[in-house]
Amino acid sequence: MTDTFAGKILHTTITADGTLRLELVDQQWGPPGADEVVVRVEATPINPSDLGLLIGPADLSTLAVDGGVLTAKVPERRLGLVKARLGEALPVGNEGAGTVVAAGSNAGHLLGKKVGMLGGAMYGHYRQLPVRDCIVLPDGASAADGAAMFVNPLTALGFVETMRAEGHKAIVHTAAASNLGQMLNRICLKDGVPLVCVVRSAEQVALLKGQGAEHVLDSSADGFDAALVEAVAATGATLAFDALGGGTLGSRILAAMEAAANKGAAYSRYGSTTFKQLYIYGGLDLSPTTLGRNFGFSWSVGGWLLTPFLQKAGRDVAARLRQRVADELTTTFASHYTATISLADVLNPEMVRAYDRKATGEKFLIDPRL
Amino acid sequence: MTDTFAGKILHTTITADGTLRLELVDQQWGPPGADEVVVRVEATPINPSDLGLLIGPADLSTLAVDGGVLTAKVPERRLGLVKARLGEALPVGNEGAGTVVAAGSNAGHLLGKKVGMLGGAMYGHYRQLPVRDCIVLPDGASAADGAAMFVNPLTALGFVETMRAEGHKAIVHTAAASNLGQMLNRICLKDGVPLVCVVRSAEQVALLKGQGAEHVLDSSADGFDAALVEAVAATGATLAFDALGGGTLGSRILAAMEAAANKGAAYSRYGSTTFKQLYIYGGLDLSPTTLGRNFGFSWSVGGWLLTPFLQKAGRDVAARLRQRVADELTTTFASHYTATISLADVLNPEMVRAYDRKATGEKFLIDPRL
Repeated sequence: MTDTFAGKILHTTITADGTLRLELVDQQWGPPGADEVVVRVEATPINPSDLGLLIGPADLSTLAVDGGVLTAKVPERRLGLVKARLGEALPVGNEGAGTVVAAGSNAGHLLGKKVGMLGGAMYGHYRQLPVRDCIVLPDGASAADGAAMFVNPLTALGFVETMRAEGHKAIVHTAAASNLGQMLNRICLKDGVPLVCVVRSAEQVALLKGQGAEHVLDSSADGFDAALVEAVAATGATLAFDALGGGTLGSRILAAMEAAANKGAAYSRYGSTTFKQLYIYGGLDLSPTTLGRNFGFSWSVGGWLLTPFLQKAGRDVAARLRQRVADELTTTFASHYTATISLADVLNPEMVRAYDRKATGEKFLIDPRL
Repeated sequence: MTDTFAGKILHTTITADGTLRLELVDQQWGPPGADEVVVRVEATPINPSDLGLLIGPADLSTLAVDGGVLTAKVPERRLGLVKARLGEALPVGNEGAGTVVAAGSNAGHLLGKKVGMLGGAMYGHYRQLPVRDCIVLPDGASAADGAAMFVNPLTALGFVETMRAEGHKAIVHTAAASNLGQMLNRICLKDGVPLVCVVRSAEQVALLKGQGAEHVLDSSADGFDAALVEAVAATGATLAFDALGGGTLGSRILAAMEAAANKGAAYSRYGSTTFKQLYIYGGLDLSPTTLGRNFGFSWSVGGWLLTPFLQKAGRDVAARLRQRVADELTTTFASHYTATISLADVLNPEMVRAYDRKATGEKFLIDPRL
């Protein structure tokens, strides 16, 4: 048996003149170091957090295939957003799962086991990584079950941890019908945390209500802002997590929290003393964040990312959260996929438009063996 | 000697149909409670922080005088900003100074003394207030010297305290040629704190450079963003205080901090790990805050106000800062006024346009005895 493996890996590049290039290139993996394993990747999801790196701010109406390379133009006004990556060929894929096919001298017990993995570069036939970035899947769990056991589960749990650590008692969540949003709803129901779900259609309202969510609001409906004030007042939410980033929705949520805080209070031109926190954790809307500032001076808007959260929370909290994910992998933390595609499919223009659509409830899984 | 005093006080009202009304109404002050004094107001400044309450979002092209009442229209789209104050007649004036003309049983030692005062409702002939909201002026200091010894001095000192408490080592400040900005520059020079001053004209650059400031940048000049990156890199500033609030300047400052942090660093699509904080402490620009989010995920934008800062900092810190202001009242914390006006002048349309212009370096003082 050899400890080296040959295959393909996906690279994304944005050239200095503003062309996105996606291609599969040859790579060798192994032999693993003492504390490393080589894993055959069998399932790796396309998360919204992967799309930012994979596609960047490219204009998908300009997709073209040229000798096995998929290209698209990045509008010049958006090139500034990606200045630091220009010209670099970058691997993609935050997380995945597969079977350990080679193990270093300290990792022999993992050989042949199915593991979930975190750490980037998952869109390839193999992945070589430290043992500490793997979790052995529970008996009976498939690679598909374990493919997304890090980013969404730990993010959703991180929201609730952040709520407790920063002294809030309820959460407003946008794009709440996403896989992540459904997961957060299951956690909140289980843990008794009041949650206000903001979605974009009546269908998504029905979906979440069907899963037991109490407060589900359609931001495209008349009277949304007034309904939001009521839901915020009913739950006492002073913390929001926003997946969109751009536009005015975050500002409207802060304004609703301020209106709820001011119910029956005396006027102060500086606004209420109730502290309101909005975290932006995604960029589904690439347009600028627009804050109306009609919510006093006691507020904060900031970025929220999983890795810094875990670093700040510390090793014990991270271990506790990972253990919970493993324990509830096929219940609370189950993910659902619209389709399973091959590595080559990732470079198919029609497929790109499908997985980039970010339609709620749609989610793609890559199986590099296909 | 009587312990009650009659005079006028200024009230500002925004009616439900969107009319701003400024008027002088009769009021009586005194007798003071045991721990109170009545002070004859002799000097009270028009701070930017007063203008928000005094004028609100009124359209000054519609100013009119009607039987001693000054009126102006508030554009309907801005009425939402002031919903909570509609119909309420509110006194104005955050701070002032004058002579104690009546004192309660525990405050007899203050009778006849000149004091600085904090607490609102200063735009009137008298002010009745608790002794704890007064500071006796140093010998030789005039009421004009002590009129603005709270808001600007404690705000400027609060910026430096916040910098230290939150682990930053330098500050970027906008509208930096203001009275407050000049004061902050003097504090930073004295305390050895690196400061990047952002101003709007070449004249303001010259003004601050003439006062010893090292990094002064004109946001209206070509190459401003590149120069800002250099200044941020040179000082290590990761904290900014923005008096404007609206527009894109705050976002450009965060982007400059991110660019400085990324100099020579490897690409991460989540941006640098350097935490960048922007505090909005004023609203010179009432338009929405627009964040380009081209500065990664390690950032926060929040409101900053003096009163919550002082509450959070605690009694000892507040006492230390107030003592420093008294000690350096006519040096570090000296304010300069463009003109001294009467209470009636505050209702003069031409004067309103002058003091509302917020031209840097222009500042008005009210002497209610005129």
